[in-house]
Amino acid sequence: MGANMARRLADLGYPVTAVYDHHASLASSLAIELGSQAVTTLPEVTAAADVIFTVVTDDASMNEIFSGDASLLKGASGKVFINCATVSPGAHEAAAEAAEAMGADALAASMASSITQARQGTLYLMVGGDEAVFERLEPLLKDISSSLRYVGPVGNAARIKALVNMVMNINTAGLAEGLGLGAAMGLDLQLLKEVFSQTGANSRVLETDGDDMITREHDCYFSASHAAKDSGIANVMADSAGVQAPLSRATEAQYRKLIDLGLGELDKSGVAELTFPGRVNG
Amino acid sequence: MGANMARRLADLGYPVTAVYDHHASLASSLAIELGSQAVTTLPEVTAAADVIFTVVTDDASMNEIFSGDASLLKGASGKVFINCATVSPGAHEAAAEAAEAMGADALAASMASSITQARQGTLYLMVGGDEAVFERLEPLLKDISSSLRYVGPVGNAARIKALVNMVMNINTAGLAEGLGLGAAMGLDLQLLKEVFSQTGANSRVLETDGDDMITREHDCYFSASHAAKDSGIANVMADSAGVQAPLSRATEAQYRKLIDLGLGELDKSGVAELTFPGRVNG
Repeated sequence: MGANMARRLADLGYPVTAVYDHHASLASSLAIELGSQAVTTLPEVTAAADVIFTVVTDDASMNEIFSGDASLLKGASGKVFINCATVSPGAHEAAAEAAEAMGADALAASMASSITQARQGTLYLMVGGDEAVFERLEPLLKDISSSLRYVGPVGNAARIKALVNMVMNINTAGLAEGLGLGAAMGLDLQLLKEVFSQTGANSRVLETDGDDMITREHDCYFSASHAAKDSGIANVMADSAGVQAPLSRATEAQYRKLIDLGLGELDKSGVAELTFPGRVNG
Repeated sequence: MGANMARRLADLGYPVTAVYDHHASLASSLAIELGSQAVTTLPEVTAAADVIFTVVTDDASMNEIFSGDASLLKGASGKVFINCATVSPGAHEAAAEAAEAMGADALAASMASSITQARQGTLYLMVGGDEAVFERLEPLLKDISSSLRYVGPVGNAARIKALVNMVMNINTAGLAEGLGLGAAMGLDLQLLKEVFSQTGANSRVLETDGDDMITREHDCYFSASHAAKDSGIANVMADSAGVQAPLSRATEAQYRKLIDLGLGELDKSGVAELTFPGRVNG
């Protein structure tokens, strides 16, 4: 994701002055491709740029890059961080507070899009944080997105993103049940899919994942592991808020079952492996 | 539903020769409106018509109107039944077998539409049964529908209908969790709904039920009780087929909870009463 955002920025002529990855070889090859430099410590990233994009995988990584002397915070005064990871609202808030304590600014930019959109600069971006900082960075953010929304305080971007993925994952796991049961009853699945599309059963995931579930085409766009993580974030939020979320809990359980079966790297459509007859069936 | 189908047929000039309802007063007022006759026994319905539409509420009622001497079967030879109820595939199969044993034909016509569409003749109809019988009745069926699909054996119409409602109900209960959690976190719900509509969280029920959940506008189009019944039919089908359906089970449980709270006559959007802060919360 981060690499494709960097490619897009480079395409538009932005100076990509440094790239960093936990796996140094990934950073090296991207640096060669973009005529950038691969750095091996986080403070070098901060030193090399005015605006620093971050995309990490989980709360622990987010906490790691924003704490201590060996982190992005070193020498951060006057810099702006744009944190794009899908992590918990609290992790975004903590990162922003730590940055601000060092005299830096931080925005949370949640992406409801995938790798292709990052490469093409057509991300769906929801940005939380100080509104004046958002307005200052708006031209840059517009260059990587086709839809850009300011959503309020820094944690809101992650909250909305978590809710998007929560509902998307529920719809996906639910669709897998409908199509799987249709398959078990010997129905014509193309007819069933068409009827779904024309009735109250229609959904975006029917369009994106319906055929993949039927044909077992689970190449990864958004992995089952990510789905489990994101539904998990939403479920923790529901716990904190005292909100009932039995479907979201059932959805997280399905995706965790896929992980337990060693299938966490399948696309989220892989949840159909649990519901179609004669497949894995947990 | 049946009354509006009868009104539509009368509009088009079809002779509606008899109407029957378990509640005789409903049949009487409809008969006056349509210049038809209200009959008080089922065999009188069969005697009065060549084509008999039935719309009942559950498997038990379906079984009742198609068994014994006081049922629609009396004098049914040569007649055609078009059974429109959302009941189990087995109930449709049993009714069709009983009709055929009497020398009558029976089609199952499942409707993925609501009262308004019945009145306007724009039903989404999925018809199962003998294909020759379907072809013979096709002009009539086209007059009450805007989309007409032949879906194979008589039980298939109910199977597909059950799957449509299963997935629709999952998406509805899931949407209620997402919007309810958003409300609990103080998010702008119109913004959240807009983001859902532009991302992987989009669904038909977001369009039809999203605002109703937010504004608590739960006037009944498709009741929570019906949702519980239909998800229940799908869950029994899943049991029989040995298919996992944890989300559909969680959905049925939510709708049963609404019934237990005395809220079964709310629209299906009423499931949001269980997930929004400060509402019922089960």
